[in-house]
Amino acid sequence: MNVTDEERSRILSRAAFQDPDDEIATETVRKKKRMPIIRETVEPPLLESNDDNAVVEVGSLNVLNSNFESLDYDICENTLFLDEERKKGYKFIVKKSVARWMIFLLIGVLTALIGVSIDVSISELSKIKFAKLQNSLNVCMTDNCLCIPLFIFLAWNVIPVLIGSTLVTCIEPIAGGSGIPQVKCYLNGIKMPRIVRIKTLIVKIIGVITSVVGGLACGKEGPMIHSGAVVAAGISQGKSTTLRKDLGVFNYFREDHEKRDFVSGGAAAGVAAAFGAPVGGVLFSLEEGASFWNQSLTWRIFFASMVSTFTLNLILSAYHGHPGQLSFSGLLNFGKFESLNYDLFELAIFVMMGGIGGILGAVFNLFNYKLTVFRIRYVNTKVKKIMEAVIAAMVSTAVPMLMIYFINECKPLETDPTENPVQMFCGDGQYNTVAALWLQVPERSVRALLHDPPAALSFLSLGLFIMVYFLMAVWTFGLSVSGGLFIPSLLIGAAWGRFFSQILQFIFPGAGWIDPGKYALIGAAAQLGGIVRMTISLTIILIEATGDITFGLPLMITLITAKWTGDFFSEGIYDYHIQLSGVPLLAWEPPPLSGNIYANQVMSYPVVTFSVVETVGNIIDNLSNLTHNGFPVIDSQPLDEVAQSNKPTSSPKSCGHLCGLILRDQLIVLLLNKAYKYPSGMVDQRETINMFRNEYPRYPRIEQVDVAEEDRHLKIDLRPYMNPSPYVVQHVASLPRVFRLFRALGLRHLIIVDDMFGVVGMVTRKDLARYRVWRHHGRIGLEELKISANFKS
Amino acid sequence: MNVTDEERSRILSRAAFQDPDDEIATETVRKKKRMPIIRETVEPPLLESNDDNAVVEVGSLNVLNSNFESLDYDICENTLFLDEERKKGYKFIVKKSVARWMIFLLIGVLTALIGVSIDVSISELSKIKFAKLQNSLNVCMTDNCLCIPLFIFLAWNVIPVLIGSTLVTCIEPIAGGSGIPQVKCYLNGIKMPRIVRIKTLIVKIIGVITSVVGGLACGKEGPMIHSGAVVAAGISQGKSTTLRKDLGVFNYFREDHEKRDFVSGGAAAGVAAAFGAPVGGVLFSLEEGASFWNQSLTWRIFFASMVSTFTLNLILSAYHGHPGQLSFSGLLNFGKFESLNYDLFELAIFVMMGGIGGILGAVFNLFNYKLTVFRIRYVNTKVKKIMEAVIAAMVSTAVPMLMIYFINECKPLETDPTENPVQMFCGDGQYNTVAALWLQVPERSVRALLHDPPAALSFLSLGLFIMVYFLMAVWTFGLSVSGGLFIPSLLIGAAWGRFFSQILQFIFPGAGWIDPGKYALIGAAAQLGGIVRMTISLTIILIEATGDITFGLPLMITLITAKWTGDFFSEGIYDYHIQLSGVPLLAWEPPPLSGNIYANQVMSYPVVTFSVVETVGNIIDNLSNLTHNGFPVIDSQPLDEVAQSNKPTSSPKSCGHLCGLILRDQLIVLLLNKAYKYPSGMVDQRETINMFRNEYPRYPRIEQVDVAEEDRHLKIDLRPYMNPSPYVVQHVASLPRVFRLFRALGLRHLIIVDDMFGVVGMVTRKDLARYRVWRHHGRIGLEELKISANFKS
Repeated sequence: MNVTDEERSRILSRAAFQDPDDEIATETVRKKKRMPIIRETVEPPLLESNDDNAVVEVGSLNVLNSNFESLDYDICENTLFLDEERKKGYKFIVKKSVARWMIFLLIGVLTALIGVSIDVSISELSKIKFAKLQNSLNVCMTDNCLCIPLFIFLAWNVIPVLIGSTLVTCIEPIAGGSGIPQVKCYLNGIKMPRIVRIKTLIVKIIGVITSVVGGLACGKEGPMIHSGAVVAAGISQGKSTTLRKDLGVFNYFREDHEKRDFVSGGAAAGVAAAFGAPVGGVLFSLEEGASFWNQSLTWRIFFASMVSTFTLNLILSAYHGHPGQLSFSGLLNFGKFESLNYDLFELAIFVMMGGIGGILGAVFNLFNYKLTVFRIRYVNTKVKKIMEAVIAAMVSTAVPMLMIYFINECKPLETDPTENPVQMFCGDGQYNTVAALWLQVPERSVRALLHDPPAALSFLSLGLFIMVYFLMAVWTFGLSVSGGLFIPSLLIGAAWGRFFSQILQFIFPGAGWIDPGKYALIGAAAQLGGIVRMTISLTIILIEATGDITFGLPLMITLITAKWTGDFFSEGIYDYHIQLSGVPLLAWEPPPLSGNIYANQVMSYPVVTFSVVETVGNIIDNLSNLTHNGFPVIDSQPLDEVAQSNKPTSSPKSCGHLCGLILRDQLIVLLLNKAYKYPSGMVDQRETINMFRNEYPRYPRIEQVDVAEEDRHLKIDLRPYMNPSPYVVQHVASLPRVFRLFRALGLRHLIIVDDMFGVVGMVTRKDLARYRVWRHHGRIGLEELKISANFKS
Repeated sequence: MNVTDEERSRILSRAAFQDPDDEIATETVRKKKRMPIIRETVEPPLLESNDDNAVVEVGSLNVLNSNFESLDYDICENTLFLDEERKKGYKFIVKKSVARWMIFLLIGVLTALIGVSIDVSISELSKIKFAKLQNSLNVCMTDNCLCIPLFIFLAWNVIPVLIGSTLVTCIEPIAGGSGIPQVKCYLNGIKMPRIVRIKTLIVKIIGVITSVVGGLACGKEGPMIHSGAVVAAGISQGKSTTLRKDLGVFNYFREDHEKRDFVSGGAAAGVAAAFGAPVGGVLFSLEEGASFWNQSLTWRIFFASMVSTFTLNLILSAYHGHPGQLSFSGLLNFGKFESLNYDLFELAIFVMMGGIGGILGAVFNLFNYKLTVFRIRYVNTKVKKIMEAVIAAMVSTAVPMLMIYFINECKPLETDPTENPVQMFCGDGQYNTVAALWLQVPERSVRALLHDPPAALSFLSLGLFIMVYFLMAVWTFGLSVSGGLFIPSLLIGAAWGRFFSQILQFIFPGAGWIDPGKYALIGAAAQLGGIVRMTISLTIILIEATGDITFGLPLMITLITAKWTGDFFSEGIYDYHIQLSGVPLLAWEPPPLSGNIYANQVMSYPVVTFSVVETVGNIIDNLSNLTHNGFPVIDSQPLDEVAQSNKPTSSPKSCGHLCGLILRDQLIVLLLNKAYKYPSGMVDQRETINMFRNEYPRYPRIEQVDVAEEDRHLKIDLRPYMNPSPYVVQHVASLPRVFRLFRALGLRHLIIVDDMFGVVGMVTRKDLARYRVWRHHGRIGLEELKISANFKS
């Protein structure tokens, strides 16, 4: 379809002159008659015009939740902001800059401290648990009282999981899971409610310790990344609303732009602490978060990551009895590989393993997706959620015990440095290898799989372990407990990598190049890549965890293959969970072939505007009746006219020229502070900019603002508070152009204007996130997602 | 100064209603009466209004050269582009995507091949050179014919340098130097003439081989990065204008956007080949180039880097006799460190060394800056330039010979694995250590300094070597030869780092932690950081070259200190050279405290516009009389009126609404193809989009376009060709907002509109690059640079 100029103006006129009375102008009840997008390659018709009131089908991947808002990453350079800057001068800039570096330093140190606490708690508790268990097992083998170790094991698994699950379910559900999807969404520019609160942090820390100690198939890496993010958001604000404590420092950082920048640093520091991968941390933050690559911000993020790695290193070296010796590199340490070499032809094997990883990852994700949908539908009360977690803990007890009991594989004690050798049915001086695999924290099992001598485990025990652990990991991710899936993925991958090497050993007996550790490493990478589908940062994290740069290309090739194979069959696991919650994540690029969709087809309209000097009554009415968050400010309409017609003002073409943009939150703060009582400029300047900061980030709702009836006719001059030059695009701009502008500048509202600079529409995140490439039976097309407010997840 | 609304509208009216006849509207002769920017902290008045015709004072750092143009990074989504996309559908997208991956693969492979050729040529030639020299020295010591080795040395140094310098000076001057500043500018979005041509590549390759073989104090790393960039630009276009060869492939990549993306990959592959640092390569490209972080582009860049490292590795392993064994990691290899450990207190020492590096770097840069200014003034003919290079080659012969002759330091042969041991005045079975330092390629010397046993060199010889090499490196950078300064910087730094460790050894005799290799490494990092002031990428490059991730924090701390100390005293070396050529490089962030400078103060005006249907005569006249490159297209003015008044149409407020933006190059192609002969839409669509691609990137000048006099009244419909929705901002937008939009989207032209969407001005790169933070005696302010077309560099 060739859109000619005439058609375009027709489209526009439909948009611009639509009678505003026809429709109730709320964002949640937007019924737009969109032009159908005709494309030769698209077979099925686009989704029907959204009936936004209907409850969304549970577990749909095709609906966006309209309750999610964007962060205000665009700096609102209003008069107050500029006045402060000018008054305080360069010293203020320098002060802010020094404060930023200090905060990044603190972020690094505190994130590492949290990482250490989690790690030490887990390892100390697990040490006690496994020692007791080992003891009891060894004693009871002879005394024939095997139900005692079983009971000990059960208690040590069920009680922690019960505690953790109760905390997560009842106190802070957002602390559940790994936290990476949430951090990813936040860094993408979405206001994720409650994810960077101190309560979330505490629940998360206790939650992850209990889940890992409780023997669930989960790891502590994701939660550490989330913790870093919370720490960053907390420190940088100098106050905690939860604790009702305002230190009064750093109040100039109380805005979304600064906060998001700090959170990038926190997430990076978290990665650095979790994997001992400072560079990987930086690239994680960039891959997930960056809108606009900013050199000095990146440098500060790198600094926080390095400090985090260093602090962790320092403390853990001391904890392990080598104070001052800085050789302990990160929590996830693959250990020293004696000789990590590969021959050229092995690259083909790595590609094959990448493919296997991609397929297994896709299977994992699809299983987990189905399970998650099931959970949304049926496991929907707190009690059921806690029950499910407890049952998972029980199964995680029973299965290993059965495996240890029935698979009787023995090795002499010297060959394998396991922490808790269990004799079971083995002869004296021997230990049960399956018990060694199960009775230690999963990190140690990964390291064992990477470094154990060849043929440490039989085909049977390894194969069974892979199957069981795979299913348990699928089950665990999405339980109402805290815990990530990096370690389980690595463990599964390392196990089948080792299995693979034993097959190779069987086919090519005696071949020198078959090192089980090497293949376990590649398997681990393939499996992780197949599940999470991260690319750049993951490659670097694995290189750093291996501590050997020469193995970069094999890891990269494996990860590329795993990602491409996996993408062919399913989405990444985080993407499933994000889509299920309807979060309007913006991709990196506009959807392909969307060049003939124009801004006026994308935008929401009609737009409610305010006059530069607006009456209090009109503001209150509009804020109460609408869910809009941004209002263009225009200056031509006679004020009285607006005040009299007590209904939302829409944007006819003649509405006058655009003067600025004001946000709901700003208006609420103005009403709260009774700005209408003072003539413009009378309010002390320093007070006014801080009045916004004092309320940040949790603004009251309009219902909580108390305005006397007789004040409703008073006026507020919005000019000092509004953003005086919001970014605009013309109604004829194409979707890719709108998308790039929106994404690159991290916008929340983008105003669409007509040829005379009249406001005709507004584009927000959901309007752009709605377009998605759709693939089916080798065909490809563009589809529009539904948007709904009635969301259930 | 508080800019009120009244003032703003006054400023605007001055801009909008300025009589266009007052001024000759050319970009080069812009006499703008800017509002003085008043700031409390700024002491000296701003630079006076630019008298652009005056020849710029030679060697000024405060002038921008107005001849530099931006790349068109913004995709021109005109009707032709959309039609092609729509007609070819998703298959075309997939084809382009596959082609992109293929090209990045090729970039990696070819860059590595070039790297190998350079490396192998240098090492083979040097081997012959030093072997002959060693032989002759050893023979003549006994035969008393020391003038023979001197002559051999002289010939081996002067002849290659003469060849290289002649090539660079006479054939392609832009191939001189390291190429990093040029690549940096290109990636910043500046059209650097001739830097990505095949002629440049050939001259660069021969040039760098000759300079290094000729014994100048320079390295091959910078030129390799430049080579990668040229390779990328060449392959991706599928044609070479120089070779008059058009393969007819990849013509859909013939635009600035795609080309710049490929060049990022090429530069990264170059870094990867030069340093064996694929991650460092990615970060180099991002640090220097990224406008908008793009995940899939970054992933492709990473791929090219990995392929480059791998290919190089593969070939060099084979070359060194271990085919198939992929352990050879990169050209710049610091070698295996036995044990790279550090104690906590050593961080303080590293900070100190960082400071020293910063100071020495600043001294280096200031010396080199003064020398460069001297060169611009006095070494300004080809003969003088070649002469200077030859003299430098002679001095580079004489000084080492004198040092070898006069410093008689001997060591037994076994202790040091030098390639060409020279006996000189030493006893049998001993060799001259100074000769060992000089008579090998600089990379080997760096490695020797990092790994030689303690006290391999005396204070005297080391100190003298540092001084001599420092001065020679200062002299060499900026000579009319190809050669980078990474290796010289590393060599100087490693030498003084070793010197430093010997001092420490002297103070704390017998202390176990004093490892000369470790301090040499830190010294090398400090010196390099102090000179080039790169941060993120450099840290990672050095970590990768060390091959040991645990030494990350010391390197980072050293580099931070070196950069901050250095920045306090001088600019980075590349920045000096960029400023001296007046390249309008855009920083990452808008200058601080520029929030009260508005778009209408920044913009150029009046703007020349075209009608949507414009007469050929008017187009030709405007193109001939003006130097503008972008013309807004508007639609309200009656066409005849424009045609009659045969002078540039400016933009009064009533000029009608903005329809699009058309570029000079597009107009020239239209005239060249006689688009005015066909009614709109008659030209075959496929032909029309390719007619632009066929001319890219070297469009003819308007004088070369031949239009018959009788055709001047014919009209061209510009609508299918123009960019239909150029980005615009309001005249009241602040400089930081304009800057961020411009930078994030990689724009070339940004149209400034008034409240009625009338075009009032245009912002280009120079208008933004002009603002610079200025520091003097602890005070700080904002200054404006001059802009001039009469540039001499």
